[in-house]
Amino acid sequence: MSVTRSFDPRKLRRYLPILEWGSKYTPSTFANDGIAAIIVTIMLIPQSLAYALLAGLPAQMGLYASILPLVAYAIFGTSRALAVGPVAVVSLMTAAAVGNMALQGTAEYAAAAITLAFISGVILLVMGFFRLGFFANFLSHPVIAGFITASGILIAASQIKHIFGVSASGETLPERLISLAQHLGQTNFITLIIGVAATAFLFWVRKGLKPLLISKGVGPRMADIATKAGPVAAVVVTTLISFAFSLNDHGVKIVGEVPRGLPPLTLPHFSPEIWSQLFGSAILISIIGFVESVSVAQTLAAKKRQRIVPDQELIGLGASNIAAAISGGYPVTGGFARSVVNFDAGAETPAAGAFTAVGIALAALFLTPLLYFLPIATLAATIIVAVLSLVDFKILKTTWGYSKADFAAVLATILLTLWFGVETGVSSGVILSIALHLYKTSRPHVAEVGLVPGSEHFRNINRHDVLTVPEMVTIRVDESLYFANARFLEDYILDRIADNPVIKHVVLMCPAVNDVDSSALETLEELNRRLNDAGIKLHLSEVKGPVMDRLQKSHLLQDLSGQVFLSQFAAMKALGDVTKPVPPETQSDTAA
Amino acid sequence: MSVTRSFDPRKLRRYLPILEWGSKYTPSTFANDGIAAIIVTIMLIPQSLAYALLAGLPAQMGLYASILPLVAYAIFGTSRALAVGPVAVVSLMTAAAVGNMALQGTAEYAAAAITLAFISGVILLVMGFFRLGFFANFLSHPVIAGFITASGILIAASQIKHIFGVSASGETLPERLISLAQHLGQTNFITLIIGVAATAFLFWVRKGLKPLLISKGVGPRMADIATKAGPVAAVVVTTLISFAFSLNDHGVKIVGEVPRGLPPLTLPHFSPEIWSQLFGSAILISIIGFVESVSVAQTLAAKKRQRIVPDQELIGLGASNIAAAISGGYPVTGGFARSVVNFDAGAETPAAGAFTAVGIALAALFLTPLLYFLPIATLAATIIVAVLSLVDFKILKTTWGYSKADFAAVLATILLTLWFGVETGVSSGVILSIALHLYKTSRPHVAEVGLVPGSEHFRNINRHDVLTVPEMVTIRVDESLYFANARFLEDYILDRIADNPVIKHVVLMCPAVNDVDSSALETLEELNRRLNDAGIKLHLSEVKGPVMDRLQKSHLLQDLSGQVFLSQFAAMKALGDVTKPVPPETQSDTAA
Repeated sequence: MSVTRSFDPRKLRRYLPILEWGSKYTPSTFANDGIAAIIVTIMLIPQSLAYALLAGLPAQMGLYASILPLVAYAIFGTSRALAVGPVAVVSLMTAAAVGNMALQGTAEYAAAAITLAFISGVILLVMGFFRLGFFANFLSHPVIAGFITASGILIAASQIKHIFGVSASGETLPERLISLAQHLGQTNFITLIIGVAATAFLFWVRKGLKPLLISKGVGPRMADIATKAGPVAAVVVTTLISFAFSLNDHGVKIVGEVPRGLPPLTLPHFSPEIWSQLFGSAILISIIGFVESVSVAQTLAAKKRQRIVPDQELIGLGASNIAAAISGGYPVTGGFARSVVNFDAGAETPAAGAFTAVGIALAALFLTPLLYFLPIATLAATIIVAVLSLVDFKILKTTWGYSKADFAAVLATILLTLWFGVETGVSSGVILSIALHLYKTSRPHVAEVGLVPGSEHFRNINRHDVLTVPEMVTIRVDESLYFANARFLEDYILDRIADNPVIKHVVLMCPAVNDVDSSALETLEELNRRLNDAGIKLHLSEVKGPVMDRLQKSHLLQDLSGQVFLSQFAAMKALGDVTKPVPPETQSDTAA
Repeated sequence: MSVTRSFDPRKLRRYLPILEWGSKYTPSTFANDGIAAIIVTIMLIPQSLAYALLAGLPAQMGLYASILPLVAYAIFGTSRALAVGPVAVVSLMTAAAVGNMALQGTAEYAAAAITLAFISGVILLVMGFFRLGFFANFLSHPVIAGFITASGILIAASQIKHIFGVSASGETLPERLISLAQHLGQTNFITLIIGVAATAFLFWVRKGLKPLLISKGVGPRMADIATKAGPVAAVVVTTLISFAFSLNDHGVKIVGEVPRGLPPLTLPHFSPEIWSQLFGSAILISIIGFVESVSVAQTLAAKKRQRIVPDQELIGLGASNIAAAISGGYPVTGGFARSVVNFDAGAETPAAGAFTAVGIALAALFLTPLLYFLPIATLAATIIVAVLSLVDFKILKTTWGYSKADFAAVLATILLTLWFGVETGVSSGVILSIALHLYKTSRPHVAEVGLVPGSEHFRNINRHDVLTVPEMVTIRVDESLYFANARFLEDYILDRIADNPVIKHVVLMCPAVNDVDSSALETLEELNRRLNDAGIKLHLSEVKGPVMDRLQKSHLLQDLSGQVFLSQFAAMKALGDVTKPVPPETQSDTAA
């Protein structure tokens, strides 16, 4: 009998999905992954530069964030098609978090962004190891939708200054718009022409190029992919113009010197003070990044009946962010547009991500000198066109029609994010949606019911002509009973019996009660005592199996003044003299 | 046609319950209320002094808090028997809140307590006018029980120093015990004898007097009331001893000079700085006080089939606290012990409270000189004996047996309150119980079900021998679908279909789904699309009426790849080839 614990390869595979797909890798998979990688690389170069700009970081940090993190995800991630790297919303959140600590353009600013990636990576890894992915569930859909829309507007507003070639600042929408208006007098018109032209071109590529290509006989999938190369075309053309006319001498801001070479080895700060300042932001960035990433991965995996493991995704994204932190990058997550391109281009395994990393590394080694003359306005145009697809006010309309509480959560999240910035916006949204949920369930639907004549069914006495017995009140509650609504039910019942000396029995009909927590149990025991003091018996009917199992662990059932009935009809037969119930006024019309 | 709005007396009666019961007041009601008032006055005098001491305030403020607030409650309150005034837990919370702002014994300390009562009164009034009483529901029973138990221990620990006649300080239990241990060397032994004797006497009165009186032929109700006079006896006897032997010359701390006369007119601070410092504490005090008060009032009202109006109780308690603030008092609420005495002594209307106020006012006018020699140790004994009845560890045992989540909430609230003080304790408890509730509902009970042979019932495939069809998976979810659990369900279903090419239909069976919020709707729409991409149809069965009404406002039903079935049996007949289902292994044993 050996006491050494045997090595369990399945356990290792849980944490290293690469062992799973790597063992089945074939030349044809390699070819497909390689083609996808080339297409994603072309798309990712301008995006990486632009999002670094949005985060207030040097352009090369965007490239660095698109190399090692992709390799880390390829090893630890479970999605076959997710493409990680810098994304718009996380870049905006990085700027908001780091902007409180240092001035843009300083070394401390960049170091803080690196530290933010590291903390975010640690948070994601810890959540992954302890399987805490469910925390992300507390971000309701209205909050996410409102937040993404507001972020899109904030991001677009932050880039308008680059289109006009002016300086402006501010973190919230009013600050940004006021600062922009104050500086409009300094507009550089050459910059404006480039910016507007690039924006118009990119919008046309997005809307008009695909139909054009299809009408020329290009397949819809290839046409889709080709439209993603629009930003590259804009970058190449405007860089050439900028170079040819030395536009930087005419006040057009350009990217300038981008250091050539592979990512440097960097280390985050470990000062407790800096960690405590960045921790809250890192949690928000981690959770928002995780939610977006899993949602994309889930969508793509379902198309091929593949599965992703959300808790392992936390580890994949955590490893990616730590990889970003040690290689001069900043917080990364799975991007929607590039993952779809990756999937459509035929990526079969996470190796496509690793190959993309090679492509970006080559760009960092050889292409950076060519970016010298790239106008900042072109990158701003890329960002604006990309993020405006995030802005979606339809959610306001759909939630308005479906649920006013959800509408309130969306509207509040949008307004708070625009007015007070991303962190206040999303935190308030989460708190609000939890509060609204508790409020809704704290006032459950409660109906007094009676017997439908000629049947064994019971219905709301206010909506149907039903038989009732004056000595007996039957209350059906359509919600689990827990601390937030237990008192509501108690008030309802005590109100119903107040000043009504005829009542002898109260039956609580529980077919929709999925749980009874300690507070509700205490309330039921209290209600039982109080009704008993008033000479009224409390009965239960149609209690579900699991709820009954749990109640049997308490004293309620043995203390109950009344009985527990399997069906409400049995309760009425036992308690009410059903041969002489009070008929509804219209009974003669409806009785069977 | 008149445009002036007519006066609606019912509206006035909503806010002034006194108009309701006052119009029916009779001489016999007056006699009953008067007798109850005398008994409550006798009980309230030592309590008022003791709780002022506990709050760190001069003794007379306890009396002042038992005069005008009672009159205010008599006008605005809805409970016929509730006796308001200073109570132990709120006194402790007052000490914790005000202790951060000023030193005990200073004029600023007293002024801060007055301001706290005022802010608390405003909060209660605002909550009452806007009918926000449901906020109190978020205090779950485990949190309240844990908090009250921990408060009882903290209060008792805070009084031990008076029994030993030493100085000690500290807000949390460890601080208090360490400080006490450091000062034990300075014990005054005469004080200790008085303190221990008073404590022992009061415990005996509580446990032993009632059986004794009953054995002597006293009725149980009178015996009950007589035991409440124990503290008065202790006060009288120890004051006489203290006076006879001039114990203050031997180092025994006495109450000393208590100003004689009616409550002074006082005004709270209105500085925004002080308000912002006290606001959080005032919210906690208001809500804790409200919850305790309503719970007592509810219990007593139910015995006579009377009703209380929780939102009007907020107004009653708010008016009481504002009355306390303008008459030199401090935060008040409905007390459990004294309300029960009031009820048992025969109080019929809130007028009993007003008569009690007259009694206390007479005491403030004429009795205060007699309190000069009252030993502080006697008051401490009164407090200790009173609060130890609050300490109840049974809640740990009952919640352990009933629900581990609720047990965790109780234990955390107790430990956090003892270790970090009342405010941190109760706030953490509330957050924890909300988080645990969300966690529980975020992982709902989900079962895959099959047909019970020979019936139309469906049961869990893991627990019963049921018929299933390989092409069709039926998932029953036993919880409302909302943001915190929607993704769980989606993951569950996507996991179930992954790598299983046989499945053609997924049926979501919804008899226990009471609500589907926007997030869950979005998830269902997404799930529908994803399953469709994988060639699987999504169906719903047994959807409740109100949920169906709501879903009809969305696009889900028209986009649904499958159908909505009224019953699961109909779904199985339509989708599965029920003539050839796969039998359970033991079917031959169980088939009908």
